[in-house]
Amino acid sequence: MTLEPLSDTAIVHSWHKNAQPWTTAVREGHIQSRKLITDRAIIDAVVDQHPRSVLDLGCGEGWLARALSAKGIDVLGIDVVPELVKQAQSMGGGQFEVLSYEEIGAGKLNQQFDVAVSNFALLGHESVLGLFQEMPSLLAPNGSFIVQTIHPVVGCGAYRYEDGWHEGSWAGFSHDFSDPAPWYFRTLESWVRLYSDHGFRLKEMREPLHPQLEKLASVVLIGALID
Amino acid sequence: MTLEPLSDTAIVHSWHKNAQPWTTAVREGHIQSRKLITDRAIIDAVVDQHPRSVLDLGCGEGWLARALSAKGIDVLGIDVVPELVKQAQSMGGGQFEVLSYEEIGAGKLNQQFDVAVSNFALLGHESVLGLFQEMPSLLAPNGSFIVQTIHPVVGCGAYRYEDGWHEGSWAGFSHDFSDPAPWYFRTLESWVRLYSDHGFRLKEMREPLHPQLEKLASVVLIGALID
Repeated sequence: MTLEPLSDTAIVHSWHKNAQPWTTAVREGHIQSRKLITDRAIIDAVVDQHPRSVLDLGCGEGWLARALSAKGIDVLGIDVVPELVKQAQSMGGGQFEVLSYEEIGAGKLNQQFDVAVSNFALLGHESVLGLFQEMPSLLAPNGSFIVQTIHPVVGCGAYRYEDGWHEGSWAGFSHDFSDPAPWYFRTLESWVRLYSDHGFRLKEMREPLHPQLEKLASVVLIGALID
Repeated sequence: MTLEPLSDTAIVHSWHKNAQPWTTAVREGHIQSRKLITDRAIIDAVVDQHPRSVLDLGCGEGWLARALSAKGIDVLGIDVVPELVKQAQSMGGGQFEVLSYEEIGAGKLNQQFDVAVSNFALLGHESVLGLFQEMPSLLAPNGSFIVQTIHPVVGCGAYRYEDGWHEGSWAGFSHDFSDPAPWYFRTLESWVRLYSDHGFRLKEMREPLHPQLEKLASVVLIGALID
């Protein structure tokens, strides 16, 4: 099978290859923007909703699930990469399952949560649309869907500011990484529309600042399910 | 009376001084980004709501009211600067009144509209807060409040990305302009919160692009009143 280089499949392919160095990078705190700003930003955004149960979409090696479990929250982490789920399970602090966004979009997760969260893990095109379409049935009444992602206006790079595939890069990461994943860029307009079109009211759009660089480190979108 | 240089009062003071050159600049199409992008963006945003009645906040010399009136919409334009209101009245195409945001915030406009719109005219601090607080009582059920403003991420300049007063500038305008108005910068996070905190659901955040420069020309926020 030939792999389409800019596709949801290519993203998953890349993460299969990089599961091990990624686990090391996260657990050893190699990613400065995460340590300094964005880890705290996503934890705060979730905790501010006072959830009893959380679905962590694209949980990776599980750090966020562990952090939330430590606060007494029931967390289910799902990821499409078995190696990452194995790493998460080995540390405990939550339930972890191998599950793709496509499977969730097809209704295979028959559970409801107070909050669904995705931390820099909504990188695809159709897979993300499918998740948004399914999301209302995955959330309890008044549930929230929280997404942290690269701030589009800052992360657009040299591309025209419009939705479309961008090439990936491991710049700043160790040489253990290979085959960077492409990602489907969405403008802020498109992120807001994803919420608005799928039954959500955008409660907040947080813009965490890098404390030294004074640059935007990310954007955190918090949508509440409309009754 | 000493004028506080970074204040809502200083904004109004500046516009009193620049009413005449502003009228000329708008009517002769001197402001390229308006001609190319943002005039059309705000008209489209309003028309897309199918309103029968519109309140144009900070209407200036009245071009937007005229454009909407030409589409069969009843428009009331208000502005704090008598000279601008006089200019608007002289061209017709809508009703125009001298009224400050503070007066509206104090409940002096006892009318309801399908849409309230402000095109690059929410420049102050407390005055804008007062408007948002009053807005639900100025809108009919399912009414919308539409704001076009400088895109914060692009318009922040050399300042730290956080709410606060910025100095004004007439760079790019003719020498007939003087005493540029300061403006109170708000992050996107703060704009979204203004809507969310005052009974609105943010339906859309449009990000018009400059067709040649491929840069963001503005942001258009469309909030719908929650029942």
